[in-house]
Amino acid sequence: AEERLPVLVSAVLPAGGTGERMGGGTPKQFCPILGRPLISYTVQALERINWISHIVVVVSLDNVEIMKSIVKRYGHKRSVIVEGGTSRHRSIFNGLEIFVKNSPIQKPEVVIIHDAVRPFVEKDIIFKVVMAAKEHGAAGAIRPLVSTVIASSADGCLDHSLDRAKYRASEMPQAFLFDVIHQAYRQCNDYDLDYGTECLHLALKYSKTNAKLIEGPPDLWKVTYKKDLYAAESLIREAISQQVCVITDMNENAVQVGFLLHKTLKSHVKQVRSLSSTLCKDDNHLQNILLGQCYNFICINDTPSDFQKTQQLVEMLENTNASVLYSIVLISVHLNNLEDTSCSSEMPKLVELAKEVNKTNIFLYGLIIHYQQDNMKLEEITDSASALIMALIRDRNPAFVGQLLVA
Amino acid sequence: AEERLPVLVSAVLPAGGTGERMGGGTPKQFCPILGRPLISYTVQALERINWISHIVVVVSLDNVEIMKSIVKRYGHKRSVIVEGGTSRHRSIFNGLEIFVKNSPIQKPEVVIIHDAVRPFVEKDIIFKVVMAAKEHGAAGAIRPLVSTVIASSADGCLDHSLDRAKYRASEMPQAFLFDVIHQAYRQCNDYDLDYGTECLHLALKYSKTNAKLIEGPPDLWKVTYKKDLYAAESLIREAISQQVCVITDMNENAVQVGFLLHKTLKSHVKQVRSLSSTLCKDDNHLQNILLGQCYNFICINDTPSDFQKTQQLVEMLENTNASVLYSIVLISVHLNNLEDTSCSSEMPKLVELAKEVNKTNIFLYGLIIHYQQDNMKLEEITDSASALIMALIRDRNPAFVGQLLVA
Ligand SMILES: [Mg+2]
Ligand SMILES: [Mg+2]
Repeated sequence: AEERLPVLVSAVLPAGGTGERMGGGTPKQFCPILGRPLISYTVQALERINWISHIVVVVSLDNVEIMKSIVKRYGHKRSVIVEGGTSRHRSIFNGLEIFVKNSPIQKPEVVIIHDAVRPFVEKDIIFKVVMAAKEHGAAGAIRPLVSTVIASSADGCLDHSLDRAKYRASEMPQAFLFDVIHQAYRQCNDYDLDYGTECLHLALKYSKTNAKLIEGPPDLWKVTYKKDLYAAESLIREAISQQVCVITDMNENAVQVGFLLHKTLKSHVKQVRSLSSTLCKDDNHLQNILLGQCYNFICINDTPSDFQKTQQLVEMLENTNASVLYSIVLISVHLNNLEDTSCSSEMPKLVELAKEVNKTNIFLYGLIIHYQQDNMKLEEITDSASALIMALIRDRNPAFVGQLLVA
Repeated sequence: AEERLPVLVSAVLPAGGTGERMGGGTPKQFCPILGRPLISYTVQALERINWISHIVVVVSLDNVEIMKSIVKRYGHKRSVIVEGGTSRHRSIFNGLEIFVKNSPIQKPEVVIIHDAVRPFVEKDIIFKVVMAAKEHGAAGAIRPLVSTVIASSADGCLDHSLDRAKYRASEMPQAFLFDVIHQAYRQCNDYDLDYGTECLHLALKYSKTNAKLIEGPPDLWKVTYKKDLYAAESLIREAISQQVCVITDMNENAVQVGFLLHKTLKSHVKQVRSLSSTLCKDDNHLQNILLGQCYNFICINDTPSDFQKTQQLVEMLENTNASVLYSIVLISVHLNNLEDTSCSSEMPKLVELAKEVNKTNIFLYGLIIHYQQDNMKLEEITDSASALIMALIRDRNPAFVGQLLVA
């Protein structure tokens, strides 16, 4: 379902910043979140919207090669990498110029300007801002002020405080008729280019265009400090923990345990899907689950030494590109009918397989469930297995791959 | 080392908010972070400063009992619980009145006002704000603006944007000569009390006092959204992962492994301390480590079935109150000289002990290290053991207690 807008839209993503506020080191747009650079998540957020023609990523000369490797590794389409200037405004200007210089990239009617460090932007607000820009010439997302804004006197004392109700914080995304913002950048002076921060201000000052202001959702926030990287990581972890697929061996006990796990997992995540068919390469059902962005799989094998189902799934996952953007958690569950809690037989196999699949971003963990004939006891044990499964999924901890847990 | 200031200081902590911005449910100051309500961390931050005489926590009538149980459970001293009003300003006013009503709590010369949802406040900025308040009558922490502030016209379009360099965000803590702020609250009108948000503004308007503005550090941020709870949790996890204590059995192999772990752990945390003495109740060394706020212990036992060192430490930890504020991670390491990877003997014992100590907020995990005579191989294996140890410490995952990992 390709969606089309009656207007040609492209985006510019300034990412030339040097990350001073993080205390030096890696600029924040290149900091890894679950192993992948922040900027890739933001590019992905724009790429999901198929009516955005090109995504122009503006990076400093130092980071051009890094950005190229990110685009290649994570398979970003429609990205164009442009070298930035010495300030945010100069970088955006460079990004806009690519559409008018003798380049094969068509000049859009509306251009979106977004921040590389706001990865949680949703389609809805982008659509609203683009439509408002088409009508008014310029538009930008705003949010209520979180703190009171104050003006200080020359001696560092309070002069006056602003009435919070009358002011808003200007956020991203913003959008402009291309000519409105391009003309503003062409006409503005060096002081604007070096010290200015607000595109809406340039559109007003140089193109006499009063931007339409659109109240945006809280997830427009900007990754600024280390704490924000932590918050982003937790939010992404949470988002990819919402779907689980349970695959069971045809063995009767495995099917029973699969059924019980399905039931208890449903109270922890939005969607649980179960498959008990023989896995095969052109299994449409599994292909659909993968396309539906499920990143968590539980394979219920018959015995502690049996890895058949797990290995079948591994092969299928490796044949798709399912784990390019996010790691896949794969929990190999093994039923144990014996009274003893020995785990000698399966450990070496599990460790070896886990090491192997880790190379393709699949995190494999083992889980022993002591099968009980008694239904009450079995429910109790599958409840604690579910708690371990949810912890492994939410945690996505690469340090624990190849470990064998016991429920 | 009791510190004294030449001025009597107390604090008011308004915590009457209802948490609308979090999407309803539990008000954010009562949301658990690693199992403990956010407000307890903020009270703790003030309590650490021993020149603050009283900490007046203002909560809504609904939450008085909850707050009482928090103060009791986490052993907060010098806290006074006061019932709040229908707005932030009315709550602060109630908090101030407690010092002047016929109450046994002495009226301070300077009163600090802080937010219950800013747990990361440090002593340094509190000291600066208090000293500035003593001199100027009022003082408050400020931060640079993160976003441009804009004013909109009646039709929802941009009217003008403010020059970011000329304005600041007003944050907390703030401090006042008690009479300055108390008089301001007594004189202000109902509109101020119901809709105002800025104490500095009241001090200016009603007590003609221009507050001194003090540039604060980034960690004054306010827990406002769910993402902020995630960020706070990660920062606290990180803070309590910085010290590790390694306790080894006197057995030669155990001492060797302890030495190697000490060496590799040092590259991951700020401080590693090692003990190989016989643990006894009045061991000053261990007592000092506990007082030094170490929340992570590694006990190296001789064999897979030997839990002697681990059990000794458990007893000592339970006799102190070391795990009242933060969970303690205790990793029971067992050396295995055998070639096989069986783990049958120790599992039931570990599970039982883990369940028991979990009641006192101690998270017990097991770790098998396959002892190797070959030094190179042993270093390799202690490296991977260190990676598992660091993951367990940073994770602090209650779901994994009683599990046995293998290095
Ligand atoms: Mg801008
Ligand atoms: Mg205030």
